[in-house]
Amino acid sequence: MNFGMIIYVIGWVLCFEAAFMMPACAVAVLYRESAGFALLFTAVLCGTAGFALTRRKPKNAAIYAREGFVAVSFSWIVLSIMGALPFTISGEIPFYIDALFETVSGFTTTGSSILTDVEALSHCMLFWRSFTHWIGGMGVLVFLMAILPLAGGTNMYLMKAESPGPVVGKLVPKVKSTALILYLMYIALSLLQLVFLLLGRMPLFDAVTTVFGTAGTGGFGIRGDSIAGYSPYIQVVITVFMILFGVNFNFYYLLTRKKWKAAVGMSEVRAYFLIILSAVALITFNISGMFSSVWEALRHAAFQVGSIMTTTGFATADFDLWPSFSKTLLVLLMFVGACAGSTGGGIKVSRVMILLKSVKKELDVIVHPHNVRKLKVDGRVVEHAVVRSVNVFMVSYILLYAVSVLLISVDNFDFTTNFTAVAATINNIGPGLEMVGPTRCFADFSVFSKLVLTFDMLAGRLELFPLLILFGKNTWRK
Amino acid sequence: MNFGMIIYVIGWVLCFEAAFMMPACAVAVLYRESAGFALLFTAVLCGTAGFALTRRKPKNAAIYAREGFVAVSFSWIVLSIMGALPFTISGEIPFYIDALFETVSGFTTTGSSILTDVEALSHCMLFWRSFTHWIGGMGVLVFLMAILPLAGGTNMYLMKAESPGPVVGKLVPKVKSTALILYLMYIALSLLQLVFLLLGRMPLFDAVTTVFGTAGTGGFGIRGDSIAGYSPYIQVVITVFMILFGVNFNFYYLLTRKKWKAAVGMSEVRAYFLIILSAVALITFNISGMFSSVWEALRHAAFQVGSIMTTTGFATADFDLWPSFSKTLLVLLMFVGACAGSTGGGIKVSRVMILLKSVKKELDVIVHPHNVRKLKVDGRVVEHAVVRSVNVFMVSYILLYAVSVLLISVDNFDFTTNFTAVAATINNIGPGLEMVGPTRCFADFSVFSKLVLTFDMLAGRLELFPLLILFGKNTWRK
Repeated sequence: MNFGMIIYVIGWVLCFEAAFMMPACAVAVLYRESAGFALLFTAVLCGTAGFALTRRKPKNAAIYAREGFVAVSFSWIVLSIMGALPFTISGEIPFYIDALFETVSGFTTTGSSILTDVEALSHCMLFWRSFTHWIGGMGVLVFLMAILPLAGGTNMYLMKAESPGPVVGKLVPKVKSTALILYLMYIALSLLQLVFLLLGRMPLFDAVTTVFGTAGTGGFGIRGDSIAGYSPYIQVVITVFMILFGVNFNFYYLLTRKKWKAAVGMSEVRAYFLIILSAVALITFNISGMFSSVWEALRHAAFQVGSIMTTTGFATADFDLWPSFSKTLLVLLMFVGACAGSTGGGIKVSRVMILLKSVKKELDVIVHPHNVRKLKVDGRVVEHAVVRSVNVFMVSYILLYAVSVLLISVDNFDFTTNFTAVAATINNIGPGLEMVGPTRCFADFSVFSKLVLTFDMLAGRLELFPLLILFGKNTWRK
Repeated sequence: MNFGMIIYVIGWVLCFEAAFMMPACAVAVLYRESAGFALLFTAVLCGTAGFALTRRKPKNAAIYAREGFVAVSFSWIVLSIMGALPFTISGEIPFYIDALFETVSGFTTTGSSILTDVEALSHCMLFWRSFTHWIGGMGVLVFLMAILPLAGGTNMYLMKAESPGPVVGKLVPKVKSTALILYLMYIALSLLQLVFLLLGRMPLFDAVTTVFGTAGTGGFGIRGDSIAGYSPYIQVVITVFMILFGVNFNFYYLLTRKKWKAAVGMSEVRAYFLIILSAVALITFNISGMFSSVWEALRHAAFQVGSIMTTTGFATADFDLWPSFSKTLLVLLMFVGACAGSTGGGIKVSRVMILLKSVKKELDVIVHPHNVRKLKVDGRVVEHAVVRSVNVFMVSYILLYAVSVLLISVDNFDFTTNFTAVAATINNIGPGLEMVGPTRCFADFSVFSKLVLTFDMLAGRLELFPLLILFGKNTWRK
C-alpha cells in the first residue's frame, strides 16, 4: 500500500477544502456575520495541514485500485470531519455529531437534515451547507484531477472510485482532460439554471444556493418549506434542471461533439426518461383528486418524481400524505436512482438495466441451454467482470441496507420510518416517509443511529466498495 | 417442447390429488360432516380427469430443463385450482378466489389465511387445509417420482424444478430412490413429532393437523389463537420440530448413513443454527421486560424465531406488539429462510452464504487483482453457473418483490402492511406486521391484491424461475 501517495492526496483535498470555504467567508463579509470567523478559522486549519502534507511529493506516485479506493474513502472522511467544524465552532449546530451528519449529508448530496429550523442559520453557514452539495456532486477528487498533474495515468483509479456507475470511462484519452470537461459542463449547466432562476425574480442568494442543491442533486433548501413557497415558474425550472443533472454527462459530451445519433441512442438515458414519464403519469392520475386542477397535480407529480428519481430531495408537496400507491412508487424510484455518470445517487439506471438483462439471459439459458448469448448494452458486450461487479454491488447494498435498518430500529421508531430513513440516506436522497417525511427531519434519531445513517450516506455516494474494503484485513497487508 | 409428457405428468398429479383427498373424506365420515361430499365430488373429478390423461404414456418420455420447469409450474397451478374446489362447493369459503388463496397458501406451505374465524370450518375441511401443507412441503412431484417409474433418468429436471435451494443433488444415484428416501425421512420425522405431541395430551385431531403444519413448515392452525392456547410443553415440542424440519434433509441422510463428521461439518446447517441461536438471544434480551420471567421470554422468542426462520408461521405471541428491534430482526429472518433441501421457504441459508462469499471474493479482487481464488462451500468449488444463477435469483426476487408491493399498494394500506404482506407470502411464511400481523389475516385485501399475493406464494415455493419462464416467448418456441 502506497501510504505516502494517499497522504499526499488527502493533503491536496485539505488545501482545496480551505479554498472552497473562501466564497462562504465572502458571504459572511457581505452580510457582516460573525459566524464567518468559524469558517475562516477552519479554512486556515485545513490550509495549514494541507500545506504541510503536500510539501513533498512521494517518489512512487503510483495509485492502483487499492490505493485509489482507500484514498477516496479517507479523502471524503477528512473532508466531512473538517467541513463540519464551522457549524459547531460558530455554535449554529452545537453538537458535533449533528454537524457531521449535516456535512456528510451535504458532500454526499443527500440533503437529509437534522435541523428543525433551517431558517435560523446565518447566510454564510447556509451558503457553505449548500456549497458542499455542489462540491460533492461532481466529486472533489475529479476536481483535483482536473487541476493538478497528479500522476502519470494511474490516477484513473481515483476517478473510478469516486465516480458513480458500473463502468467509468474516460471521455477523452487523458484523465485530466476528462475531469476538466466534466467540470466545465457542470459549471455551464449550473450557470444556465442560475440565469433561468434569476429571470423568475428569485433573490440572488436563494438562486445560488438552490443551484448548488439542484446541480449536485443534493436537496438542502434554505427555507423551512423547501421549494413549496416559490412560484410555479421557479418550481418548473427546478424540475427541469433536477432531471437534467440526473442525466449521464456522456450524453452532454456527445451533444457538444455534435454526435446527435450516439447521444439519442444512449439506452440508459432513454430508459431514464421513460421511467420518469411513466411515473409522472401514474402519480398525476393517482393524486389528481387532491389538487384543484390536473395541471397542478401534474406539476407536483413531476417535481416530486424528478426530485426523488434524481435523488435530489427538494419538495413542493408533502408526499407523505399522498395515497399509498404514489408513496410506494416514489420509494421504488429512490432505489433506481439517476443515470451513471451523473451527479445523482441510487443504484443507477444502467445497473438496473444490466440486472434486468441478466435475468432475461438466465431464463434463456434454462430454455435453450446450448444457445448462450452475451449480455449487450448499446450494442456492446458487457464484460463478465462488470456483470459480476454489479451483482456483488447489489448484494453488498442489500446487506448494508438490512443491517442499517436493524441497527437504527433500536430507537424503536416504526418500520416505515426506519426503512425509508435508510433508503433516503444510502441512496443520497434526503426525505423519506413518516417521521422522516418531507416536512420532518432526522433530529429525533439517537446519536448511534445518526452515525449509522452517516455511514450509509458515505457508502452510498462512494458506491460501497471504497468504504467496505477499509474493513478487509487483506487491504492492509503488504 | 414435449407437451405430451407435460400433460401426462399433470394427469398423474390429478390422480394423486384424488388419492390425497381420501383421508379428508375419512375424517368427514368420522365426524359425520356433509362437507365431505364436496371433497368426494372433487376427488372423483380429479380422478376421472387424471385417469383420462394418463391412459397413454407418450412415446417420447424425455423431460429436459424447459419441460421440467413448465410441468412443475402447471402441476402446482392445477393442483391448487382443483384443491380449492371443496372449500367453495361446501360453502365454507363461498368466494372461489379466497378459496384459491387459501389452497395455494396451503400447498406452498405459506400459511397466510383469509379466514377471520378458522374455528368455523368443519373438521374435514380443516384436515384437508392442513394436509395441503404436508403434501406441498416435500413436494408433490417428488412424491410422484418416489412411486412412479416416470422416465429414464431425465426426470431429474422435475426434481430440480420443485426442490428448494441453489443446487439440487441426488442422495443416491437413482432419482426414484432419492425421492423415496426423502419421503421416508419426512414421514419418520412427522411420526416422531406426533408421538411427542400425543405424550403432551394434545387431542389426536389437533396433533395430526399440527404435525402437517409443522412438517411442511406451513403454519395453518386450527384455532383462532394459533398455538398460544396450548401448554408450554407442546409449544416447546413444536419449536424443536419446526427447527428440525428447516434443516437440510441431506443432514439426516448423512446421519442415517452414520457419516457423523460429514453431517456436523455441513456449513449451511451450522450457519442455520448459529443464526437461530443469535436471534433468540437478541430477542429474548429485547423483550424480557414484557414477560414475567426470562424463561417465558426465551420460550416465546425461540418459538417465534423458529417459526419465522423456518417460514412456518405459527405464533404463540403477537410479535407485532414487540419492540421495533425484535420486529425488524424477525422481518430480516423472513428473507433468510431455512436451509436448502428442507421443507422451508425464503431465500435459503446456502444462497445467503454464497452471496456473502461472493462479496468477500470481489473485495479481494479489488485489493489483489491478480490473485483470484475460487468460491468454495464445504471445501468444494461452487461452479460459476451456480453463482450466476443465485445472483439472478436474487435480482428476480427483488424485482418481483418491488412490483408486488407496488401492485398491492392500490388498496391504500400502509407501507409496513404491504411490505410485510409480500414478505410473508413470497417467502412462504404466513403472518407479517400491522394489518397482516399474527392476530390478523389477509381478508381485507382486494381480489386483485389477493391474486398478486397468490402468485407470489407460488413463485416463492417454486423459486421463481419455473413460473417466470412461463412468460418468456422463447419458452413456447419450437
